[in-house]
Amino acid sequence: MRYLCLLLVIPLMLQWGCESGNAQTTAEKKARPEYALVIHGGAGAIKKSKMTPELEKAYRAALETALQAGETILKEGGAAQDAVIAAIQSMEENPLFNSGKGAVLTNQGKAELDASFMDGKSRNSGAVAGVRTIKSPIAAARLVMDSSKHVMMSGEGAEIFAKSYGLEMVENDYFITEKRKSQLARILEGQMASQAGMKKKYGTVGCAALDKEGNLAAGTSTGGMMNKRYGRVGDAPIIGAGTYADNASCAVSCTGHGEYFIRNVVAYDVAARMSYLEESLEKAANYIIMDKLKAINASGGLIAVDKDGNIAMPFNSSGMYRGYAKSTGERFIGIYHDEE
Amino acid sequence: MRYLCLLLVIPLMLQWGCESGNAQTTAEKKARPEYALVIHGGAGAIKKSKMTPELEKAYRAALETALQAGETILKEGGAAQDAVIAAIQSMEENPLFNSGKGAVLTNQGKAELDASFMDGKSRNSGAVAGVRTIKSPIAAARLVMDSSKHVMMSGEGAEIFAKSYGLEMVENDYFITEKRKSQLARILEGQMASQAGMKKKYGTVGCAALDKEGNLAAGTSTGGMMNKRYGRVGDAPIIGAGTYADNASCAVSCTGHGEYFIRNVVAYDVAARMSYLEESLEKAANYIIMDKLKAINASGGLIAVDKDGNIAMPFNSSGMYRGYAKSTGERFIGIYHDEE
Repeated sequence: MRYLCLLLVIPLMLQWGCESGNAQTTAEKKARPEYALVIHGGAGAIKKSKMTPELEKAYRAALETALQAGETILKEGGAAQDAVIAAIQSMEENPLFNSGKGAVLTNQGKAELDASFMDGKSRNSGAVAGVRTIKSPIAAARLVMDSSKHVMMSGEGAEIFAKSYGLEMVENDYFITEKRKSQLARILEGQMASQAGMKKKYGTVGCAALDKEGNLAAGTSTGGMMNKRYGRVGDAPIIGAGTYADNASCAVSCTGHGEYFIRNVVAYDVAARMSYLEESLEKAANYIIMDKLKAINASGGLIAVDKDGNIAMPFNSSGMYRGYAKSTGERFIGIYHDEE
Repeated sequence: MRYLCLLLVIPLMLQWGCESGNAQTTAEKKARPEYALVIHGGAGAIKKSKMTPELEKAYRAALETALQAGETILKEGGAAQDAVIAAIQSMEENPLFNSGKGAVLTNQGKAELDASFMDGKSRNSGAVAGVRTIKSPIAAARLVMDSSKHVMMSGEGAEIFAKSYGLEMVENDYFITEKRKSQLARILEGQMASQAGMKKKYGTVGCAALDKEGNLAAGTSTGGMMNKRYGRVGDAPIIGAGTYADNASCAVSCTGHGEYFIRNVVAYDVAARMSYLEESLEKAANYIIMDKLKAINASGGLIAVDKDGNIAMPFNSSGMYRGYAKSTGERFIGIYHDEE
């Protein structure tokens, strides 16, 4: 009788043991917002001690503008894809961020832009790398997804494609600001080589969104690395590294030392850990940024929203421009650690 | 007493329940070869009915030559990295395969080559995209890994980098064969548009190896898609999509409809399923190619070797040029299904 009892109880216990990891997920589901949007404007050595109050105010206002651009769409029942594009275009147009206008410059003094975009419903995606004349690289990434059979286009070929579909084209000068020109000039003169603070600012912008239909989308746009050479491509235009979205798990956009993010397939790894290990978004994102990447001195962060509207924004650098908004009225804008 | 007994036994049972998935892995470990090498020369609509005996013989001989080039290095205690390069270069130099000499042509009649390489020990990696004058793209990918801080370089920039390190440079004509020129001409004349058989042959070459030290490495090299435009980049130069290696799990090289392989982060997903779901290499690779990708009509295959020397070579197309060799003397070369 004693053994019979054991035989009956053990299968139940085994099941309980295997499912206990889901407790957190179940709790999170209860608070699912109608929509949620999260953005970043780059991570790196952003220190309060080196920031003027005026500049900080300008960054916070720019993040607020980008958040609003995306949230307005979601609030009215618009698509996550449209919200992501709107928020990123707001930052592309703002010279404070390293994307679109205000992008950092190559060793040759040109702006060479990368972007990628992914739709969580179809898991279709698009990307452009090394483009110089497309006003909105994120719009071009979406165009590649929507209007071609390809995922990634590069250089002049991508520009010919974008132009043929009527995207707005500009001279490369449109992207170049006086600030970036003088930054490059100082680097080339060797004056800034030892200023790690400037070297380690990984400007990139990104957005991830959940809409009222339950669809996820994510996008990333960047000017890449200051003083880059050799046609260097970072993680921003790489699906799986800089950007990933899947309605079954989450939408992610990364910012940081791109080479490490490629090698660690960071954006997809968040989704993989959620799907395969049944980790919560927070646990998966924190592990990758704060443990796995930190252990190899890979600086950066990511922003993500999961299918239940949970937000994660881990970063292991001193700062990350970031913010989120939810239908519940929850709202946040921050730059440094310990702001939440 | 009855309950006390239950309390003692349950933890043991729970542990047993969680570890039972490892049984297969343990069994596999017993047969670990000293080294193992697996190659592919592309997957697609390769039908025996459309192949001449002479051409089939030439392909099998070319695969044998590539296998030997890699195996010779492993047998003598050389590094997996060197074996991967040797096997791939053998195929790059053979005009039968769509990589290096004999690569398919762009819409403009040029050869534009992509390659990527990853070291499983350091998980460092390198890639080049859209290069036209580097004789061995796979050597350039390794050079990016070894001699730069970057992972990926594209176009002319990558060529300048390769040249500065003394890699052999050639005119674009070096890669162009009469066969590819006439293929492109027929496509441009619209004669082949309906010949799905030709359209769906995804030429790419790749290799994955395990050496006597237990180190894994993988690489992929391709001419991309015939008649490609717009600077299209496929999965071959994308770490995580076309190539991945990690000593903790496996080394993988993919071939197929690249856009689907990027969106599904195929190469890394094999490693993720092994690490997170504790699946065997065979189970993970088969699931991705034969279930996940097949379900969305994503044609192609992959080759992989795990840390214990197990080999997987699933493909969902009608054929895949492939082969492997192990220190145990096991040896295989095949093109169609049901050859093993």
